[in-house]
Amino acid sequence: MFKSNVFPVTDIAIGGGTEQIVRGGRHLFHQLPQGFSGMKQIGVIGWGSQGPAHAQNLRDSFMGTDMKVVVGLQADSPSCVRARVGGFSEADGTLGEMYSVIGSSDLVIVHISDAAQAELYKQIFAALKPGATIGFSHGFILKHLQNVGGSFPTNHNVIMVAPKGMGPSVRRLYVQGKDVNGAGINSSFAVANDVDGRATDIALAWSVGIGSPYTFLTTMESEVHSDLLGERGVLLGGVWAIVEVEFRRQCYEEGRDPRDAFVYAVESLTGPISQILSKEGLFGLYKSICEQGDQDEFDAAYTIAYKASAPILAEIYGEVSSGNEVRSVILAGERLKTTPMSVIGDTPMWRAGIHVRAHRSDMIPMNGHLAGMYAGMMMAQIDLLVAKGHPWSEVANESVIEATDSLNPFMHARGISYMVDNCSRTARLGARRWGPIFEKALECGFGSTEKPTDYALMEQFMKHPIHEALAMCSGLRPSVSIAIE
Amino acid sequence: MFKSNVFPVTDIAIGGGTEQIVRGGRHLFHQLPQGFSGMKQIGVIGWGSQGPAHAQNLRDSFMGTDMKVVVGLQADSPSCVRARVGGFSEADGTLGEMYSVIGSSDLVIVHISDAAQAELYKQIFAALKPGATIGFSHGFILKHLQNVGGSFPTNHNVIMVAPKGMGPSVRRLYVQGKDVNGAGINSSFAVANDVDGRATDIALAWSVGIGSPYTFLTTMESEVHSDLLGERGVLLGGVWAIVEVEFRRQCYEEGRDPRDAFVYAVESLTGPISQILSKEGLFGLYKSICEQGDQDEFDAAYTIAYKASAPILAEIYGEVSSGNEVRSVILAGERLKTTPMSVIGDTPMWRAGIHVRAHRSDMIPMNGHLAGMYAGMMMAQIDLLVAKGHPWSEVANESVIEATDSLNPFMHARGISYMVDNCSRTARLGARRWGPIFEKALECGFGSTEKPTDYALMEQFMKHPIHEALAMCSGLRPSVSIAIE
Repeated sequence: MFKSNVFPVTDIAIGGGTEQIVRGGRHLFHQLPQGFSGMKQIGVIGWGSQGPAHAQNLRDSFMGTDMKVVVGLQADSPSCVRARVGGFSEADGTLGEMYSVIGSSDLVIVHISDAAQAELYKQIFAALKPGATIGFSHGFILKHLQNVGGSFPTNHNVIMVAPKGMGPSVRRLYVQGKDVNGAGINSSFAVANDVDGRATDIALAWSVGIGSPYTFLTTMESEVHSDLLGERGVLLGGVWAIVEVEFRRQCYEEGRDPRDAFVYAVESLTGPISQILSKEGLFGLYKSICEQGDQDEFDAAYTIAYKASAPILAEIYGEVSSGNEVRSVILAGERLKTTPMSVIGDTPMWRAGIHVRAHRSDMIPMNGHLAGMYAGMMMAQIDLLVAKGHPWSEVANESVIEATDSLNPFMHARGISYMVDNCSRTARLGARRWGPIFEKALECGFGSTEKPTDYALMEQFMKHPIHEALAMCSGLRPSVSIAIE
Repeated sequence: MFKSNVFPVTDIAIGGGTEQIVRGGRHLFHQLPQGFSGMKQIGVIGWGSQGPAHAQNLRDSFMGTDMKVVVGLQADSPSCVRARVGGFSEADGTLGEMYSVIGSSDLVIVHISDAAQAELYKQIFAALKPGATIGFSHGFILKHLQNVGGSFPTNHNVIMVAPKGMGPSVRRLYVQGKDVNGAGINSSFAVANDVDGRATDIALAWSVGIGSPYTFLTTMESEVHSDLLGERGVLLGGVWAIVEVEFRRQCYEEGRDPRDAFVYAVESLTGPISQILSKEGLFGLYKSICEQGDQDEFDAAYTIAYKASAPILAEIYGEVSSGNEVRSVILAGERLKTTPMSVIGDTPMWRAGIHVRAHRSDMIPMNGHLAGMYAGMMMAQIDLLVAKGHPWSEVANESVIEATDSLNPFMHARGISYMVDNCSRTARLGARRWGPIFEKALECGFGSTEKPTDYALMEQFMKHPIHEALAMCSGLRPSVSIAIE
C-alpha cells in the first residue's frame, strides 16, 4: 500500500485481488517538479542500457521547468562520446565526472553496470550530498549487499524504478509514442529507505518522467528475483531455446529448407505470435490457434514445454534468490576482462534469418506448435512467480509484456544477438547460461517416448487468472508498436 | 613432499618435474595392518557410489588379518538391503547404525552424499571416538566448510583418498583384476590434519587397500577443484555435448541414418577412440588418425573444440573455486525432494543406440573429426588445470584416464544416463548444468563463419608435456579393461 501527494493512485482488479498503480502520461509532466519536491538536479550515472533512456527521457520531460539532468561518467570513459551524441555536454554542464555529479545532484540515479555497482557502491554512497536520494533501476545491488553483508546508507532515501523492458525500448517508445499519450514501458517502483517521507513521490515522478504508462509497487528483492528469473527464463534464455528447437524440428521433421524453417520458427514467434500476445494476451493467442484448427498441436506442445521448463525455472529461482546467480555475475566481471563473451548469432540458422528479413513478406504463418511451446513456458514461469508471491503486475510484465513490447521486436529486427546483447551484462550472461539448458530440456521433452497431452493442465491454462490480468494491463497502455529498423 | 614408514615412495618424472607416488598391488596387502597402525575397525559410512567399493575392497584386502570393515547406515535406510547383499550384516557385526559405527571405529570413512555431509558434518565430527581418524573420498566438504565458515575437528586426523573413477569402477576393476597384480583405479590422497604423525600412512594404506595402482599427493582443495571441473568438463558434461553435436552432424551433414550416425558419434568415441587413448594417450590417438589420412579433419575439429571449450572451462573453474557450484549442489538437495532430476537418455539418438548395441559389430570406425573434438576439449581442460597449478598426475587422471578407464565403458555399455547417473549426485547435477552449455558452444563454433585451423595451437598440442605424462601413467597400471555387461 502506498500514498502519493502528487499523482493519482488507482486501484486495479487483478489476479482475484486489487493492486495500486499510478497511470502515467504526458499530461502529468508539469507535475514533475512537485513530485521531485523541489529538486533541481537529477544525476544519471552511467551510459549503458538504461542510462541513456532515463537521462534523455527525463531531460525531455523536464522541458519548460527549471530542473536539469546531468550525466556522470568515469573520467575518460568511452561512453562520453556517446553521451555527447545523446545531447549532453561538459560545455552546458550536463555531462561531468561521475563523483562530482554524484556530489552535486539531488537525486542520483545509478545506471552503471551491475558489476561496477558491486565494486563501487561504498564510494558512491559516501559521495552523496546531504539530503540526496539515491535510485536504482533494479534490485541487483540489494542481492549483492546481502551476499557481502553490506547495507544501504541509512541517512538517504533509497528508491528503485525498474522499467519492464530494456533501455533502448524505454527510449524508443517514449520518442515514437510522443503523439500518443501514455506510450512507453511499464515500470515497477520500490522504496527501500524513506528518511523524509518524500521517497514514494520522488520514485513516482521518476517513473512518470521516463514515460511509464503505468507504475506498480514492488520491493527491490521481489524485483530482482523476478527480473533475473524472467530474463534467464522465457524472456531471453527460454525463447532462444524455443526457436532453436523449433528450427531443427522444421528442418528435420517437417523437411523445410533453412529459410523456410526460419520463417516458421523465428518469424512466426517475433511476428504474429508476439503481436497477438501483446494485444490479446495468452488466451487470445490460444483462441486464434484454435480457429486455424491447430488446437491439438498447441496442447501437445504446451504440455511438453510446461513440464520441461518448470523444473529449470524453479532451479533458476533458487539460484537467484540464494544470491548464487549474483555471485556468478560478479565473478564473470573478472573473467570478461580477458575473455570476451561468446558470440551467439553466427550460426546457419541465424544466417538464414538475414536472407529472410531481407525479403520479408507480410504473410508470416502462425505456427500452432511453436505457439504452444511458447505459451507453455510462459505459463510455467507465471505459475512459479505467482507461487512465490510476486504482484500480478510484475508477473504479467516479466513473463509476457516485456517479451512482446520490448524484447522480441529486437529479435525480429536483427536476430538473437541483437535482442540479448542489447540487454544488461547480467542478462546477457544469464541467457547464455540458461538458454542451452532449456534447449536441452525441450529437446529431451519432445524426443521422449512419453508425451501425451495433459488435459488437466490445459484446463488450468484456460481458467487461469493471468488472462484477466493481461487484459487489464492491455487496457492500461496504448498500443504503440515499437519500430526497429 | 611426503614420507611413509610403511610403503615405498617412488619419484616419477612427469610434466618436466618430479612427483612422488606410491605404487599399489596385492603384494602390499599384508602390510595394511602396519599402515593402519594398529587400527582394528574401519567404519564405512554410506552405501552410494563409492561406499560399496571401499567397504568391499577393504574387507577383501583385510582377509587373513584381524581388521574388519563395518558399514554404517542411517536406521531404516533403504541401502541396508543392498549392503546385506554386498556381504555385510547386523548378525556378524559388520553392519550397524551410522552414529554407533562412527563412535566405535578407528578410521571413519565418510561416503554419504555431499548434501548429507553438508547437513550432518557437525554430528559426525562430534561422534568420533578419541584418537579416531576421519576420511573423505573427495574435497567437497572442505568447500562447504569454507562457504559456511565451518572447520574440521582439530583433535582428529583428517585425510582424503579420492579414486579417479566412479565407485562401481573401483569395485569392478578390483574384482576383475584379481589375477593381474595392480589392476584398479588410481587415487590421490591428502592430509588436512595430522595430529599424531600417522595420517599419511593411514591414507596410503586405505588407498592401497582399495586397489589403487598408484597413489599421488594432492590437497583437498586441489582435489575438489579438479574433480568438479573434470566431471562438469570433458569427463561427463563435455563428452555428452561432443557426442550430441557429432550425432547431428552425422545425420544432417553426412546424411547418415540415426543408427549409423550413432556408430560414428558414440560408438567411435566409447570404442576405438577410448581404447587407444587409454593405451597410447592423446599422441597415440593423433598418430593413428594421421595414419588413416584424417589429419586435416582432426586439426580443424580440434581447433574449434579447444576454443569453444576453454572459456566455459574457465567459467566452471571460477564457479567451483568460489564455492558457488557447491552452494548450487546444496540448494538442489531441497529441490530434489519434490522434483526428480531430469531424464537424459530417452531421445531418438540414444534410442538408436539401443539397437546399435544389440547388433554390435567389431568393426567400429575411428572418426577423425570426433577424435579431434574430443582431444581439443581434453587439451583445453589439461591446459587450464596445469595453469591452475594442479599436480600432473591429477591433471592426467581427471582429464583423460578417468574417462577411458572408468567412465566411457559405462556409456559404451548402456548409453549416457548409465554413465552420468552412476556418478555422485554432485556430478549428475553438474553434467546436466554444463553439458548443454558445451553443446551450444560447440554448435556455435562449428556453425560459425570463421573456422580456420590454428596451426600454432596444433604445434602446442604436438609438443605438449601431457603426452609424456600419459605414457608415464600408462606404465604405472596394467591394462585391464573394465568389462560391463
